Amino acid sequence: MNKNLLDGVKETLLMGPGPSSVRESVYKAMGKPTIGHLDPYYYKIMNGIKEQLQTAFETKNQVTLSISGTGTAGMETCFANLIEKGDRVLVLINGYFGMRMKDMAQRMGAKVTGLEFEWGTPVDVGTVASELEKNDYKIVALVHGETSTGVRNPAQEIGKLAKKAGALYLVDAVTTFGGLRVPLDAWNIDAVYSGSQKCLSCPPGLSPVSFSKRAFKKATERKDKIPNWYLDIGLIANYWEDKKRAYHHTASSNLNYALYQALYDFIKEGPDKVFARHAEVHRYLVGKLEKLGLKMFVAEGSRLPMLNAVVCPEGVDEAAVRRKLLKDYHIEIGSGLGPLAGKIWRIGLMGHTARKKNVDTFIAALGELL
Amino acid sequence: MNKNLLDGVKETLLMGPGPSSVRESVYKAMGKPTIGHLDPYYYKIMNGIKEQLQTAFETKNQVTLSISGTGTAGMETCFANLIEKGDRVLVLINGYFGMRMKDMAQRMGAKVTGLEFEWGTPVDVGTVASELEKNDYKIVALVHGETSTGVRNPAQEIGKLAKKAGALYLVDAVTTFGGLRVPLDAWNIDAVYSGSQKCLSCPPGLSPVSFSKRAFKKATERKDKIPNWYLDIGLIANYWEDKKRAYHHTASSNLNYALYQALYDFIKEGPDKVFARHAEVHRYLVGKLEKLGLKMFVAEGSRLPMLNAVVCPEGVDEAAVRRKLLKDYHIEIGSGLGPLAGKIWRIGLMGHTARKKNVDTFIAALGELL
Repeated sequence: MNKNLLDGVKETLLMGPGPSSVRESVYKAMGKPTIGHLDPYYYKIMNGIKEQLQTAFETKNQVTLSISGTGTAGMETCFANLIEKGDRVLVLINGYFGMRMKDMAQRMGAKVTGLEFEWGTPVDVGTVASELEKNDYKIVALVHGETSTGVRNPAQEIGKLAKKAGALYLVDAVTTFGGLRVPLDAWNIDAVYSGSQKCLSCPPGLSPVSFSKRAFKKATERKDKIPNWYLDIGLIANYWEDKKRAYHHTASSNLNYALYQALYDFIKEGPDKVFARHAEVHRYLVGKLEKLGLKMFVAEGSRLPMLNAVVCPEGVDEAAVRRKLLKDYHIEIGSGLGPLAGKIWRIGLMGHTARKKNVDTFIAALGELL
Repeated sequence: MNKNLLDGVKETLLMGPGPSSVRESVYKAMGKPTIGHLDPYYYKIMNGIKEQLQTAFETKNQVTLSISGTGTAGMETCFANLIEKGDRVLVLINGYFGMRMKDMAQRMGAKVTGLEFEWGTPVDVGTVASELEKNDYKIVALVHGETSTGVRNPAQEIGKLAKKAGALYLVDAVTTFGGLRVPLDAWNIDAVYSGSQKCLSCPPGLSPVSFSKRAFKKATERKDKIPNWYLDIGLIANYWEDKKRAYHHTASSNLNYALYQALYDFIKEGPDKVFARHAEVHRYLVGKLEKLGLKMFVAEGSRLPMLNAVVCPEGVDEAAVRRKLLKDYHIEIGSGLGPLAGKIWRIGLMGHTARKKNVDTFIAALGELL
């Protein structure tokens, strides 16, 4: 018998683009006894998660739930359900995840316009406004926090434009949810997805998703069945609804315990306090990085608090630094994606990770390595 | 602040159609510290899981991995990748999951023939043989163990027919894998999926999947992109391959720890011994049920050891019995699906649940209730 590889798993300070470090309360929740996906007590927990997500997303949307897959499954849920063949879709792209949205929308048979902006800069509201005046779109899609660059996009402003244009507004809140406000109803967001493993600090595997009435209507009244049984929001909503509880798939009670606990902790700490903590620890990190002589990749004002892109200084082997941080200090940070590979580090301050002491630990290690 | 619902989660003896009861070793594994999906140590664990799955599936298939979703995500992975629009697909149906396959295949734009057999009886090999002689099919799909009825289908024999017909052979091993042999190479199976929460006794959330060379070739050389980014097997295989490790999605280290440990325990106990244990405990259960005067729904010879469908006696309120078992005895069993709702109970003996002492506990409780 081979040795058990799990014996070698080491506690790691997760300061990359997610997953983030998990609270003890969440590990403990996840380890509670598995119960059935059709157990009435599990339904209570589902209802609890729905209410918690409604609170955290500041929404009255009835269709607010966790998808049994990662953030990308949430993305797929939104695109697969909302796009009908031939729909014109405007995807706003200023990073890797905007590109992924475009690929996904194209696979659904949409006529996709990808409106591109320089990586590291935010989506420009004026450019979007004139595009929406020129052409009719059924859907406008935006990544709120572009995890690949650390840019915060103007999600509220784009929401106003989408509403004016009569388009459904689809937002990626994978990285922002739980660390920045994402008020669905106030911002006219029709469909949103996130991931459990970012600012909620839950292990990966679930994707919080919410559909407005209007979005759900389009998804469930379309003529052709959606080309995705697993992520068919109509079928999934029938499982989440108390009056129906129609079996769809075997949801993971353990992962959902973890999500419940993470949301419980988030609400108990107080969303505003959590957001303030993210902002404060972000400023603390930026100050420390600048003292080390490092430059932020994104201009002040457009930076995400939970995902900090830092320019790798010339002459420094960025991959070697990451490797040593992980191997010798048990600290994980992220690399650049696509055109930013080798050029930036991505330092996450998500959820439970967003603590000054973690910044101190990281900065001390980085200081030694540079 | 509301009370924490997780305080009310009770240890339950899971004797339904899955999830099954989870070993202490697996809970412990799942609670190990979360690490990143791009951590080199996590790659080692992925390689470990791949080798374990190759052992358990008796296959040399390189594309053998866990999908980040439940068994139905595995089903979707197989259908979405293998079906090109207009492909003729033969789905063999003798229960709920065969019906689900048909729906899924149709959503992919296949020309689907659903060959139906009476629920509770196995797929008839002769009928399939003559259908395959009459018509050309690109894909033949079979549910090995029909979880809705407790029937074991002749997967090996259908594999021979599919091979002779030159069709790809797609098998659902959700319920059977880990409790009955599913030797992919020997049975000519081109694509298979299972679930973590059945005979492997791992919490739900992952789906073991394997593609033959031929199946992977069809999936990756097709002209149109598959209408599913999350489950695109080419992208996923690039993440699982040591030489590539191309980021695709944030796989759940914790769930994969649990799967690794469940497979570790399976291989350590010895697959043949595990299969023998399932067979023995199944016979033990059937004997006890018959002593209570109950009748099995499926004829001897076609019964699944891990999923036992029992006819609910006339005059007994089947739902009330299940409710009382769960509420007063903390034992979960399953109800009938579709046309079998209200008519049968489904008693699972999967993985760790397949122990004589669990049968004794259940039979004692059922005896009191009848």
